[in-house]
Amino acid sequence: MSNNKDKKMVEAITSMDVDFAQWYTDIVKKADLVDYSSVRGCMIIRPYGYAIWENIQKTLDEKFKETGHENVYMPMFIPESLLQKEKDHVEGFAPEVAWVTHGGQEELTERLCVRPTSETLFCDHYANIVQSYRDLPKLYNQWCSVVRWEKTTRPFLRTVEFLWQEGHTAHATAEEAQEETIRMLNVYADFCENVLAIPVIKGQKTEKEKFAGAKATYTIESLMHDGKALQSGTSHNFGDGFARAFGIQYTDKNNQLQYVHQTSWGVSTRLIGGIIMVHGDDNGLVLPPKVAPIQVIVIPVSQHKEGVLEKAYAIRDRLAASGIRVKIDDSDKMPGWKYSEYEMKGVPVRLEIGPKDIEKNQAVLVTRVSREKLFISLDELEAKVSETLDKVQKDLYNKALEMRNKKTYTAVNLEEFEKIIKETPGFIKAMWCGERGCEDLIKEKTAATARCIPFEQEKISDKCVCCGKEAKHMVYWAKAY
Amino acid sequence: MSNNKDKKMVEAITSMDVDFAQWYTDIVKKADLVDYSSVRGCMIIRPYGYAIWENIQKTLDEKFKETGHENVYMPMFIPESLLQKEKDHVEGFAPEVAWVTHGGQEELTERLCVRPTSETLFCDHYANIVQSYRDLPKLYNQWCSVVRWEKTTRPFLRTVEFLWQEGHTAHATAEEAQEETIRMLNVYADFCENVLAIPVIKGQKTEKEKFAGAKATYTIESLMHDGKALQSGTSHNFGDGFARAFGIQYTDKNNQLQYVHQTSWGVSTRLIGGIIMVHGDDNGLVLPPKVAPIQVIVIPVSQHKEGVLEKAYAIRDRLAASGIRVKIDDSDKMPGWKYSEYEMKGVPVRLEIGPKDIEKNQAVLVTRVSREKLFISLDELEAKVSETLDKVQKDLYNKALEMRNKKTYTAVNLEEFEKIIKETPGFIKAMWCGERGCEDLIKEKTAATARCIPFEQEKISDKCVCCGKEAKHMVYWAKAY
Repeated sequence: MSNNKDKKMVEAITSMDVDFAQWYTDIVKKADLVDYSSVRGCMIIRPYGYAIWENIQKTLDEKFKETGHENVYMPMFIPESLLQKEKDHVEGFAPEVAWVTHGGQEELTERLCVRPTSETLFCDHYANIVQSYRDLPKLYNQWCSVVRWEKTTRPFLRTVEFLWQEGHTAHATAEEAQEETIRMLNVYADFCENVLAIPVIKGQKTEKEKFAGAKATYTIESLMHDGKALQSGTSHNFGDGFARAFGIQYTDKNNQLQYVHQTSWGVSTRLIGGIIMVHGDDNGLVLPPKVAPIQVIVIPVSQHKEGVLEKAYAIRDRLAASGIRVKIDDSDKMPGWKYSEYEMKGVPVRLEIGPKDIEKNQAVLVTRVSREKLFISLDELEAKVSETLDKVQKDLYNKALEMRNKKTYTAVNLEEFEKIIKETPGFIKAMWCGERGCEDLIKEKTAATARCIPFEQEKISDKCVCCGKEAKHMVYWAKAY
Repeated sequence: MSNNKDKKMVEAITSMDVDFAQWYTDIVKKADLVDYSSVRGCMIIRPYGYAIWENIQKTLDEKFKETGHENVYMPMFIPESLLQKEKDHVEGFAPEVAWVTHGGQEELTERLCVRPTSETLFCDHYANIVQSYRDLPKLYNQWCSVVRWEKTTRPFLRTVEFLWQEGHTAHATAEEAQEETIRMLNVYADFCENVLAIPVIKGQKTEKEKFAGAKATYTIESLMHDGKALQSGTSHNFGDGFARAFGIQYTDKNNQLQYVHQTSWGVSTRLIGGIIMVHGDDNGLVLPPKVAPIQVIVIPVSQHKEGVLEKAYAIRDRLAASGIRVKIDDSDKMPGWKYSEYEMKGVPVRLEIGPKDIEKNQAVLVTRVSREKLFISLDELEAKVSETLDKVQKDLYNKALEMRNKKTYTAVNLEEFEKIIKETPGFIKAMWCGERGCEDLIKEKTAATARCIPFEQEKISDKCVCCGKEAKHMVYWAKAY
């Protein structure tokens, strides 16, 4: 009986090998992460999905505060004239913003865009509040939603509105700004690897791929199950470009006027898409314990029998008391149905407790991915569960790393490159001359883009994979979300 | 020296008795709560102001979760057709919304308003996800920003964009919806009184003042220093009105289709305006310890002398370790300047530590409001500081209650009513016949509105304060923000 129910749920989602895009869509819906809304391209983030985001927020916010950052809130609107102050920036964003033209019954004299990102607002504010070197650095962050008028959208990965954080900092010197840019990239990389169990490649974006208005953009790139890359977080060094456009100047210790040097950095709900596509399997979502809203689900077996529910509640209470995010499902659904529901939701550990277990003073511990069954003594409940959660966290990271390594290739010429993209998509490490022409040609021929010039360089060959001229950098290439 | 500096700062803000509105504006600027932005009517919430909001969020969010609520995120846009589904609701809100008419380069086929409140979005979602009685209740909450195209704006009190939370729930029965409505009103009232130290009157709004689309609106009303009332939180029972408009039906246990019964409830950054206007004084902001970003500021005196800074850091570390939000100001500003800065910012407790104090193993503890100086032994540091913070919290509440009681009057006829409003503004308790005509006439003559029909009724007289006919309710009246 329970096996049948189990199968029914599993059959309900498309296998990732059959249709990866459909598999993804099935998971976001069936794991109750998202619902579609009446607004084109905007998603409803449901409680279970939002709880993942809250865990991401909580951990990152602590990190930001530890590194001296403070939260602020800027308006959600940007007057058109303000957006236009930095030339490259407006060119990059103006084509994809939503415009407010009417307030109440009146037409506005100047249209307002709904923020696609808030550099211009922060710069306008900094120009107001920064006067002296004593006012620096300004280390601000904002949690908010932003809007980009995308034509093709997918939950978490690309939506018209999405939730994110955007850090915006102003520094006295170019060196400090560069240090900050790399510091925050490292915060993101550590977070992805240690909390989300997603290994990342750290590196710099090419000129073509950098942020509109930045001097340099740094990125962490991760690899999904289907061999496509996901840009998972970016950190930009703006130099003094915005400062000059917005007149953000301070008086230094020698009483000289200087421009500030700025950075910005952000991650978004897109990370949830990354979790799905790195860890998920054909049974549904798989969540790393550190970010899972429910780390342990307790399922009473034969719960109508005397003492079962009481014991199950006691187990729940003991685990909750030791700081574990635990839930019990005492509904009247069949255990098998419950098993597959919480597998679909990616809960890392399931504890089953029935009359026989109670007799033996044990519980059955089942992990989401390996489906390994462990009989644990209730005397060691907290220790065994904590151990298992730690192990699951590490195993997920190692599994993801193994997958990425398996799908990372090298190419020394375009033929090899094209063959890999076609037959075994993944990261391609290949040399590049540094010319935009080659970058464009590779994209035209393979749809792959330069994901980053990694900090850890390797010499695959002496020559550019495209033109054969002298190579400047080793680049990670891939098709990307 | 320190006294002079102190005075300079104090002189810099307008006295509340001279010009209350200017006093308010001075505080929001000089306590670094807010900066004005380039967007008409939208404010920038600066780190110190935002930290107050984060404390409000944290405490309320815990309460919401304890009472079974889950957070979600809905789109920030509402299609015009969706907004129009509930007749009273659209009439109330459509005149004051911002309209998005263009996305990217294209004109939209249907305009979208930026959410002024999200009833319509939640209803649309509930219609999708509620099928059976097993799906109920739905207890959702959302933290977000909303936009209302107000003509006259003031930081925190009335802005085009503001931050808030909006709870939206769906229940199987009218009784459950009513219970929820009152439960959340009580959560708000307890929060205001116990955390913000603001006493509130709980009651029901009149038909004229209720929320657009609600069956009944409940409110908590507080009284500001200038005798004007502030609606500080509302909780609405929608009955099944929205459910009928949006077709939110479920199958009950007898397999009959039923409409759900709904509620919504919200508080906003407006509460920060309330804190300012209830507790503030001519030296600046006054923050209740439970919501203060900095509960204790440590000021080293003669900090260049050997051992002073070390001792000050040690005090900071001891207090931080005992869970107190403490900061040290070790900048090279004069102590007197620092004293007035942190008074302006409303920090509840200041600790001064200088060479003489160190000799005596003591610190000087000064509280923000009473400015009482207490010499405390460093052996009892944590205990004395905690005690003081508790006492300050209670004192602020009692002081606010006393102020409110002093400014609460009764009137039995319109002449008395008008005289009070003119000469000693405050709450007026007066009887009302229940007719809209009298409510309108009172507003016309006095600018006062019915703040609420309080749960705790008193009989001031038998007759309506306006028409002299038989009275139905005692009402709290006041001019309001």
